[in-house]
Amino acid sequence: MFFHRQELQHRAKPDQPDAVYARKLQEVLGGQYGEITVAMQYGFQSWNAHIPGKYRDLLFGIGTEEFGHVEMLATMIAQLLENAPVGVTEGAMQADPTVAAVIGGTDLQHAIVAGAGARPVDSMGNPWTAGYVTASGNLLADFTANANAEMQGRLQVARLYNMTDDAGVRDLLSFLIARDTMHQNQWIAAARELQEEGVEELPVPSNFPQSDENGDVAYQYINFSNGERAADGSWADGPTPDGNGEFEYVPEPPAGYPMPDPTRPDSRFFGTTDLPNTVEKIAGKAQDMLNKE
Amino acid sequence: MFFHRQELQHRAKPDQPDAVYARKLQEVLGGQYGEITVAMQYGFQSWNAHIPGKYRDLLFGIGTEEFGHVEMLATMIAQLLENAPVGVTEGAMQADPTVAAVIGGTDLQHAIVAGAGARPVDSMGNPWTAGYVTASGNLLADFTANANAEMQGRLQVARLYNMTDDAGVRDLLSFLIARDTMHQNQWIAAARELQEEGVEELPVPSNFPQSDENGDVAYQYINFSNGERAADGSWADGPTPDGNGEFEYVPEPPAGYPMPDPTRPDSRFFGTTDLPNTVEKIAGKAQDMLNKE
Amino acid sequence: MFFHRQELQHRAKPDQPDAVYARKLQEVLGGQYGEITVAMQYGFQSWNAHIPGKYRDLLFGIGTEEFGHVEMLATMIAQLLENAPVGVTEGAMQADPTVAAVIGGTDLQHAIVAGAGARPVDSMGNPWTAGYVTASGNLLADFTANANAEMQGRLQVARLYNMTDDAGVRDLLSFLIARDTMHQNQWIAAARELQEEGVEELPVPSNFPQSDENGDVAYQYINFSNGERAADGSWADGPTPDGNGEFEYVPEPPAGYPMPDPTRPDSRFFGTTDLPNTVEKIAGKAQDMLNKE
Amino acid sequence: MFFHRQELQHRAKPDQPDAVYARKLQEVLGGQYGEITVAMQYGFQSWNAHIPGKYRDLLFGIGTEEFGHVEMLATMIAQLLENAPVGVTEGAMQADPTVAAVIGGTDLQHAIVAGAGARPVDSMGNPWTAGYVTASGNLLADFTANANAEMQGRLQVARLYNMTDDAGVRDLLSFLIARDTMHQNQWIAAARELQEEGVEELPVPSNFPQSDENGDVAYQYINFSNGERAADGSWADGPTPDGNGEFEYVPEPPAGYPMPDPTRPDSRFFGTTDLPNTVEKIAGKAQDMLNKE
Amino acid sequence: MFFHRQELQHRAKPDQPDAVYARKLQEVLGGQYGEITVAMQYGFQSWNAHIPGKYRDLLFGIGTEEFGHVEMLATMIAQLLENAPVGVTEGAMQADPTVAAVIGGTDLQHAIVAGAGARPVDSMGNPWTAGYVTASGNLLADFTANANAEMQGRLQVARLYNMTDDAGVRDLLSFLIARDTMHQNQWIAAARELQEEGVEELPVPSNFPQSDENGDVAYQYINFSNGERAADGSWADGPTPDGNGEFEYVPEPPAGYPMPDPTRPDSRFFGTTDLPNTVEKIAGKAQDMLNKE
Amino acid sequence: MFFHRQELQHRAKPDQPDAVYARKLQEVLGGQYGEITVAMQYGFQSWNAHIPGKYRDLLFGIGTEEFGHVEMLATMIAQLLENAPVGVTEGAMQADPTVAAVIGGTDLQHAIVAGAGARPVDSMGNPWTAGYVTASGNLLADFTANANAEMQGRLQVARLYNMTDDAGVRDLLSFLIARDTMHQNQWIAAARELQEEGVEELPVPSNFPQSDENGDVAYQYINFSNGERAADGSWADGPTPDGNGEFEYVPEPPAGYPMPDPTRPDSRFFGTTDLPNTVEKIAGKAQDMLNKE
Repeated sequence: MFFHRQELQHRAKPDQPDAVYARKLQEVLGGQYGEITVAMQYGFQSWNAHIPGKYRDLLFGIGTEEFGHVEMLATMIAQLLENAPVGVTEGAMQADPTVAAVIGGTDLQHAIVAGAGARPVDSMGNPWTAGYVTASGNLLADFTANANAEMQGRLQVARLYNMTDDAGVRDLLSFLIARDTMHQNQWIAAARELQEEGVEELPVPSNFPQSDENGDVAYQYINFSNGERAADGSWADGPTPDGNGEFEYVPEPPAGYPMPDPTRPDSRFFGTTDLPNTVEKIAGKAQDMLNKE
Repeated sequence: MFFHRQELQHRAKPDQPDAVYARKLQEVLGGQYGEITVAMQYGFQSWNAHIPGKYRDLLFGIGTEEFGHVEMLATMIAQLLENAPVGVTEGAMQADPTVAAVIGGTDLQHAIVAGAGARPVDSMGNPWTAGYVTASGNLLADFTANANAEMQGRLQVARLYNMTDDAGVRDLLSFLIARDTMHQNQWIAAARELQEEGVEELPVPSNFPQSDENGDVAYQYINFSNGERAADGSWADGPTPDGNGEFEYVPEPPAGYPMPDPTRPDSRFFGTTDLPNTVEKIAGKAQDMLNKE
Repeated sequence: MFFHRQELQHRAKPDQPDAVYARKLQEVLGGQYGEITVAMQYGFQSWNAHIPGKYRDLLFGIGTEEFGHVEMLATMIAQLLENAPVGVTEGAMQADPTVAAVIGGTDLQHAIVAGAGARPVDSMGNPWTAGYVTASGNLLADFTANANAEMQGRLQVARLYNMTDDAGVRDLLSFLIARDTMHQNQWIAAARELQEEGVEELPVPSNFPQSDENGDVAYQYINFSNGERAADGSWADGPTPDGNGEFEYVPEPPAGYPMPDPTRPDSRFFGTTDLPNTVEKIAGKAQDMLNKE
Repeated sequence: MFFHRQELQHRAKPDQPDAVYARKLQEVLGGQYGEITVAMQYGFQSWNAHIPGKYRDLLFGIGTEEFGHVEMLATMIAQLLENAPVGVTEGAMQADPTVAAVIGGTDLQHAIVAGAGARPVDSMGNPWTAGYVTASGNLLADFTANANAEMQGRLQVARLYNMTDDAGVRDLLSFLIARDTMHQNQWIAAARELQEEGVEELPVPSNFPQSDENGDVAYQYINFSNGERAADGSWADGPTPDGNGEFEYVPEPPAGYPMPDPTRPDSRFFGTTDLPNTVEKIAGKAQDMLNKE
Repeated sequence: MFFHRQELQHRAKPDQPDAVYARKLQEVLGGQYGEITVAMQYGFQSWNAHIPGKYRDLLFGIGTEEFGHVEMLATMIAQLLENAPVGVTEGAMQADPTVAAVIGGTDLQHAIVAGAGARPVDSMGNPWTAGYVTASGNLLADFTANANAEMQGRLQVARLYNMTDDAGVRDLLSFLIARDTMHQNQWIAAARELQEEGVEELPVPSNFPQSDENGDVAYQYINFSNGERAADGSWADGPTPDGNGEFEYVPEPPAGYPMPDPTRPDSRFFGTTDLPNTVEKIAGKAQDMLNKE
Repeated sequence: MFFHRQELQHRAKPDQPDAVYARKLQEVLGGQYGEITVAMQYGFQSWNAHIPGKYRDLLFGIGTEEFGHVEMLATMIAQLLENAPVGVTEGAMQADPTVAAVIGGTDLQHAIVAGAGARPVDSMGNPWTAGYVTASGNLLADFTANANAEMQGRLQVARLYNMTDDAGVRDLLSFLIARDTMHQNQWIAAARELQEEGVEELPVPSNFPQSDENGDVAYQYINFSNGERAADGSWADGPTPDGNGEFEYVPEPPAGYPMPDPTRPDSRFFGTTDLPNTVEKIAGKAQDMLNKE
């Protein structure tokens, strides 16, 4: 169960409206790595969790906070839009190119659809989609996904921080960046703990028997490009992070396998074959001729 | 530049056709974590890379291999569909419930749209979308995304391995699982090397000055749920993975900030306010009345 | 700010697993009118609200409950999937057509992607999209959207109620149907109250001056089809619900206006015009000829 | 069957081209509540209608008109684009910031893809999707959806009216606003008539027996937020609009139900459990060890 | 302007309901090459046409017919669904595997969302999207797109013809196939006529001066694969269809151009470079250290 | 199998950065007819091909080249973004309207998401989707689709050519336009060869017996609009391109067929019928009354 209190976790008040920046901020609200994504992702991971206890508590604890971040950003965006100009009725566009430019840079649906309100979309206006969410039931994979989400999220907020000098906006972003720092650290710690406790190991999923995978190529780095320095990294030599093998560098792909013969599905799919005079075709043509007579 | 040789990296030949399984296999071809995703993801990361050398070589080398995996899976799927029944013209569905069930479990577009061919979609028929791709320009974030992609990918192929007992299919999956083992290890190694070389550090992005983030909450685990064991993990106590702080556990969120006043945008957005008799409205109604007379 | 308690608003426990039904239930979790939609819709309406007080309280109060409904459905679906068969390795499909049928009717991503977990998608596997959300800033329009959402939602859950005889599932659906009854009533009451208080009126938006709309056609029912009984309803005769006009029935569309001349954009868009020998073309061809010499 | 006459229902001719406004106008052509949505929505509702006669006639009559509105808007947009500049070849952008701003505010696909033509997209360039359409077979629910669609539509056109002072554009918008006034009134009247005739009643669907819904919570307003004025509305006290109950205000959610135990699906889904040494895992590891020897 | 008559262009009545086939038929209603696509495509091409007269008349004439095809298919699908079972309440699934299979093969939203009605989706449940539409303003390109659309459409209907033996359904499909035959022929004839009249020529767009294209490679077939028979076709030797060149076969790509140096964007994008100690980073770290003291 | 060489097929280096143009160029990288589309389309056509030899070689040969075009465009876009301004921190927007305009015209995700890198999206920011791909298994249909794709592609690049005067960009576009010229010619030649060899004929699919299509309407041009010149084209009179018929012009649609009766699905779908007192409803209400007592 969720509960709501009419407060914000942190101040969300810009010094002044800025409709162009409101659009930019949509990215971290409704984009691939925006707050809606992490809130929903941690939610589904917790509801699908197969173990009670600390790992699920962690998912619930952070996931719920993210819903509050959605709220802070939506609130901030609505205020950034407060003085958004309705349009160009007064010929403002011709008279003042800066006004014109501002209009060019806004999210038009902020005005036309939401009447100066926030929207569940990214900075280019793409609606948020659940295709962004990851929740596999395997916690080591999912915590790695979460670490990535917090990294990408912090990176985007950091970029946005440098795109404004509004102190009120920066104050909120400074808060969000700090939370991303924390959550990034937490998912890394949790992924490590899963391994230290032996709950999960590398490679994910660790309880698939490696004897069933093709051992010949499980630790070979086969280079399909011609990069000269491909072999210089720790990924080409020495022990592998999963502790089960040794990296081997293969500078060029070995000879491949012949392609199987092209398929010959039922002729009633009307695919093109090299039998120009298939029975089906002849029969059809014959019947056509008969019918014409 | 890319080149193609009419060979496959590994055998891709099922022992027998299986149209239902063909649909399942679409997931790792055209799904969120399918081969198209990793091929395109590593491609865009390499084209956007800001440094030449070993990291970019790694991206090119693996990315190109993944395009070949797309080809192997598409080839396999086409063969699994080779004997796909056209339909139920012969009353097969009534006579043989197993045939009926098979039809129920297939991807209908395999037959109707592709004529027994593979398609760039997932197992539920959703077209692949570039919304799955991550390429941020920050290699530590992106290599973490890549490690996650290989984990989710290996997990899905491992599940698929247990959904068939066709030796030919399992032979290919065994190969793909091994390659995912390798690539999973490689991205983890590469992420580690970035940090060891001091090119990137935690938290991502490491060159955003932490002095600009809100230090009060950068290492606090604020629990927004009521999980009893939330504090038990290494994410709630002790040094943080980035080496810059100490985890602190806060069992309940502190008091928040008051919500800012609701916004009052231009009345020509026709939003609902608590001023039922706005000037605009009175003027409009007055004019309406005048016009009616 | 949102808070979470590790309890459910109502029991969410099926008598027994049913992977096929789990897929059907996805519709009211992640479909166009599923719980994610209403949770997000009421959320964005509250964050964009321009008046504090009872209307916004109503949005917050119901919206937060809906997030808890998301949780109950996800929890229920995960349990319905608990015994989901991994696949057909044991030849079960051939041996037992019912098993085969079951597999045909499941959401394949429940198994392959989520490992027997719930997903943010509808019953056909389409990811939830924010394109479903409505939040315009005009409360009379939005409360009507909400009433519709609760009607469609209750209709779908009622259909689902008749698609199972699992007592545990029906117990939860019975609860959800009741809540939809309540919320349906509440949005209708709230829309009515907005009008009674004079905050908003019909037609929406009521503060756009009707003198600016084309009065000739504002109350005409122009019938573009040939239905004989088109004129029989209360929508064709008598006073209009907005109290501002009288319905007038026009059995056939009056003569229209001539289409404007086709446009003639810049020739460098290379559109097809009826000037086969445009200057651009002649010049281009001439230059080509010169170059060939 | 549909027929077409090469006329428009109303004049659709701007006084002068305006490529930036052309983009804005796309919203009510190809957006969530644009003319394509209502045309398709009323179409599918009529084709799925279960009763002949006046209600279906109404759907056909209005639905067909909306296809004509699609045509008027597309025609208008093409003309607004007639003088759209091809690009910045002449260094116009540097020389004249207004030109630059105009280019920034246009739909780039108007030029690159359509060659100065209209497109089936919204003002942010999202392609129209059938995910916007509602057609449930229950007319009371669907007419409520239609009333909402006409409200949102009229609201958006009214906003657009204030974003231009081109008399030709305003003339068309004035016409469209009037038609939205009419259709808004008609769907409200039709929804009312369904109830007065006893064909449908509240709550939708009225023929689901309310005895099957959980009567304890069917008329309780449970407030999940802490809004002080939540109880002040007509939705919290007194008779309900469906005439079947009395609103009851519950200021705080009652205690919930314990969460069910986490699920334990088949181990071959490789989900994370708290059994680090599952049989599967031990067996796998053992086999791996054996194989290595 | 569009008008509607409550008749169908052809009979659309199945001999008996078939919910599984109803789903299949959705492909040619709401799929990539379904009737909605061609109706909308020809519509937008006509509204964007730059010349009045026969070509635009052709677009209007066929386009309007296609809207009637949408209606016939929707009507047919609704009837195929007429006896669709509500669910499995009677234990039908266990008792009768064929019933179970049928349910597995249906579009679940036909039942849950549309209450046994047609939907604007394809056979896998993907909502129709305007991303399928082509309307470029260049008629030779667009008529080629139209010819392709009618080919793909006829192919799909022909496949569907073989998936049923219901005489009523086949009667309608036989009609639709014939119309596709006609329209396929018409677009080919129209594309030819454009060229014969000199309105448009190959290569499209013909009024882009070929002197501005890179003449060295304009007629070279550079083979990027190793197919032995690549050079055997008329596309590798002899005059080109546009009449402007001679095909030349190049068996292997010539040496390429060196890749440009990786980009070095502003450091505030926090991309990874090979300068581990950038000024920005040093400054940030220094400030962090100072702040810690 | 694919291989990669760290070279480009042609120079891809702009004379100077231009972030606004970078966004425009995205259209031919990640749009409906961009390079990703053709690369994937030819790929899937080759993997699904049913005949070995020259046609499949052609698909592999061109398809692989297109992946290299993806690379060239991504590389070019990254360079066009190299000097992209981070934002407006220095108040640049107010001071310099041209800077403001530039920002308005950029793809905001280039900066926020990709850190000045290319993205797999179109010029309006829509992610590339596999819904653009065509691969039916019928080569005559698919080669027509390919000819169209190359026509639309060349048209778009030609428009883009006129939107810049950067010599480096134009040099690359000049190359791409030439390749589109070639490929356009090749697909037309290949479609012709299929017919000359008798492998495929018109109408597609040619092996569906025309005797099974409704011969009455297979060559009738039924005009559903009132265009006066509809009959003037070669599509209305004379022999048809498939050689099997004669065009016949029908100036007005003949009388249609009566609509079938509306459907009456199971009452548990709760659709609206004209039986206001259905058994179900009466029973439900009765039970409700009983329960209330």
